[in-house]
Amino acid sequence: MRILLDGMGGDHAPECVVEGAIAAAGQISDEIVLIGQEELLCQLLNRYGYRGDRIRIVHAGETISNDESPVRAVRRKKDSSIVIGMSMVRDGEGDVFISAGSTGALLAGGLFILGRVDGIDRPALATVYPVIGHEPSLLVDTGANAECKPKNLLDFGIMGSIYMDKVLGRENPTVGLVNNGSEEHKGTALTKAAHELLDRSSLNFIGNIEARDLQDAVCDVIVTDGFTGNVIIKLTEGMGLMVLRELKSRFMSSTRSKMGALLLSDQLRAIKSEFDYAEYGGAPILGVKGALLKMHGSSDARAVEQTILKAVPYVNENVVGTIGSAMAEIVAREGENAENHE
Amino acid sequence: MRILLDGMGGDHAPECVVEGAIAAAGQISDEIVLIGQEELLCQLLNRYGYRGDRIRIVHAGETISNDESPVRAVRRKKDSSIVIGMSMVRDGEGDVFISAGSTGALLAGGLFILGRVDGIDRPALATVYPVIGHEPSLLVDTGANAECKPKNLLDFGIMGSIYMDKVLGRENPTVGLVNNGSEEHKGTALTKAAHELLDRSSLNFIGNIEARDLQDAVCDVIVTDGFTGNVIIKLTEGMGLMVLRELKSRFMSSTRSKMGALLLSDQLRAIKSEFDYAEYGGAPILGVKGALLKMHGSSDARAVEQTILKAVPYVNENVVGTIGSAMAEIVAREGENAENHE
Repeated sequence: MRILLDGMGGDHAPECVVEGAIAAAGQISDEIVLIGQEELLCQLLNRYGYRGDRIRIVHAGETISNDESPVRAVRRKKDSSIVIGMSMVRDGEGDVFISAGSTGALLAGGLFILGRVDGIDRPALATVYPVIGHEPSLLVDTGANAECKPKNLLDFGIMGSIYMDKVLGRENPTVGLVNNGSEEHKGTALTKAAHELLDRSSLNFIGNIEARDLQDAVCDVIVTDGFTGNVIIKLTEGMGLMVLRELKSRFMSSTRSKMGALLLSDQLRAIKSEFDYAEYGGAPILGVKGALLKMHGSSDARAVEQTILKAVPYVNENVVGTIGSAMAEIVAREGENAENHE
Repeated sequence: MRILLDGMGGDHAPECVVEGAIAAAGQISDEIVLIGQEELLCQLLNRYGYRGDRIRIVHAGETISNDESPVRAVRRKKDSSIVIGMSMVRDGEGDVFISAGSTGALLAGGLFILGRVDGIDRPALATVYPVIGHEPSLLVDTGANAECKPKNLLDFGIMGSIYMDKVLGRENPTVGLVNNGSEEHKGTALTKAAHELLDRSSLNFIGNIEARDLQDAVCDVIVTDGFTGNVIIKLTEGMGLMVLRELKSRFMSSTRSKMGALLLSDQLRAIKSEFDYAEYGGAPILGVKGALLKMHGSSDARAVEQTILKAVPYVNENVVGTIGSAMAEIVAREGENAENHE
């Protein structure tokens, strides 16, 4: 397997990307290709003392920043790490592309360079959603499509279930739809229509879920539009950070409380790791014809390492191919139904 | 002042409502009217040893449950505590109505019995939003309108600012719009258009805010549609509960950690109170011609007490009247502008 890594994307690139690549290279037998400024990446590999032969560099003369128009950037910057990486996946020169760069550019690149899976109108960004004290859920969509149609939400449920099953090993995963009430008749025009589609599908749909239940591990795959998904993931992150900050500041307020915190250091570390996104690897962009993993912009070396390790089952379990055949089956079935109705 | 209290609404009614009313009666000089089953309420006042003359009972033979259609219930159940309470506000027999009953019935009653403030198309539910380690913000709308137009969001900003200023004493409050990115060009058709309206208004608008900033106390009034607001308030509540549960379970895991938790008991209690909704009183339904406060369905006696105390400035500062005159001014100005353009 050949894993392609955007050397230039993210707040801590290229240093943390290279560090993470080296850490992962020690644990897997696959080839890792760093894409970016060749000289710089070479220097870093030397600086971090990498002597192996499993990390290769492919030069990219340009980078795409978060501030540029994603569509224009992907169209014009043919020599950028993102465009080169995606083109390599398309041409079979790599099995998966991982980047902490611009989400917009990765989505645009997914559409223009790799193309959509037949039957999927809108690819989606899926994020592993940390549930305190439980196995994580998968949240789809977390920002690719701020505005959605009911059919998009059904597709998110299908793609999310396949990823959950194949990569996170949750068989016949349960699917819930985020709504402003658990009753079937509640919601917007979008959620009501999506509820109907999900209910009629072959998915293991458990119905509407309220945001207060997200931390109760009520379902494996959480389906929502990209606007709401973005709010959920960012609020969860913001609250996690804030609670930890508040705990720390209060526990440092007196000698007595400092002693208490010392006695609780194991427990506090465990809670911190529950909020730690680095544990979970990147967010797949599902519904494009190629394996793409988007990392958090603030990813550190450990997040890069974890994402590379998570990429292995993503490729080995052929998630992209499985989504393709599932959709082909659905499209064929719908075609038959349409004929039968004629 | 006469404060009307739904004796029958909420998960812990009527017991906690009566308890809360008695606790509040000791702290204010206003009259409190309990509306509900007269005999039952009388018994409870006796059971809790109330001997004062500041709590009165008005009988209501019916109650509206959370399961019925709100509109139909409000139209048919003329003898319900909600319909009687609102009618008394409309007829000047009470200054404010407080209920932990069905949100839908309170909204429907607000529209049909009290009526909308001129210039406000859609009344909204505003909730005091707890920010860990800071003064709370006000979140509008938290569930009255799952689907909104841009003008609704502008109105939410206007009404929220008035409430924040008058009741919570935050002068010239800052207003932020929840979006899936802080940049102006980001968002849905709704948030983009609302951004423009808010930006042109005389509000202290600071622009788009992301969900991860909500716990950073970036603005006083947080404006969003009722679907997203509902997700935000419920997720915040769910995470708060879950973090506390997790802390507790981990801290009880060994003798050593139990000792640590003992040394930290003051700090843990302080953190718990940050998440404690009871501290903040009810959620005003803004934009109807009368003062309405909706309490959380799970309100305990302390929440009832706090909401009654918060009702005093809500009435005294004439929030409803101020919203009315602010909207009248805006409507008049728009009329002039329209004439000038003719």
